[in-house]
Amino acid sequence: MLLAIDLQSETPIYTQIAQQIIEGIAKGELIPGEGLPSVRALAVDLGVNLHTVNKAYHLLKQDGYVQINRKQGVIIEPDAMPIADEQFKKNLLERLRPLIAEAIARGMEMNQFEELVGTSFNELLPNGR
Amino acid sequence: MLLAIDLQSETPIYTQIAQQIIEGIAKGELIPGEGLPSVRALAVDLGVNLHTVNKAYHLLKQDGYVQINRKQGVIIEPDAMPIADEQFKKNLLERLRPLIAEAIARGMEMNQFEELVGTSFNELLPNGR
Repeated sequence: MLLAIDLQSETPIYTQIAQQIIEGIAKGELIPGEGLPSVRALAVDLGVNLHTVNKAYHLLKQDGYVQINRKQGVIIEPDAMPIADEQFKKNLLERLRPLIAEAIARGMEMNQFEELVGTSFNELLPNGR
Repeated sequence: MLLAIDLQSETPIYTQIAQQIIEGIAKGELIPGEGLPSVRALAVDLGVNLHTVNKAYHLLKQDGYVQINRKQGVIIEPDAMPIADEQFKKNLLERLRPLIAEAIARGMEMNQFEELVGTSFNELLPNGR
């Protein structure tokens, strides 16, 4: 799996790294138990600071997507991938809200918004689920 | 229209101010041509720095939601509210993508995600459109 970092983006690099690893999980390119590159290796690969990769990995650990252990290094959570519980859905609603407010302010209808959601689902899950 | 700022949030205060003004437009609480409080008045009201409010207003101006002029101060764009053009939809897709990736990684189906979209649309547009 290749990570592509956009240095011009307003999204912090550690966030970009974490988001792309989550995308990899969503797409099934990264599977439970799979090892991720060491902090050092990924930092060298991407040409970024060690702390940046470290921050991304710790964010992923905090959210339950990876385990960090001394022997195996960083691995995709092998047993209990985080679920879409009420807390997650509440958080997701809060993050969706400003996007939807902008869409409405610009005159978009709900079905037009859902079309974009569908596009994105199809990109991430090309074979459906 | 009351703005509620969350000082504990990870979202910068200027972003929160801009987002809530866009929400006000979406809900129809702020209408084209309507005046917003002066930078100073809003800063005092919210107990934040002048620069923070200034940054929010300039962000809104840059995106086309408000006009800033010497006589009337800051007003909601009276004539040509920004539209949901291809550029906006592309940007929206990019911002939706990490949310949808997380949802998929946590096992959500598209219809469950769309349910949240529907909830948010109903909160912002209680009478439909």
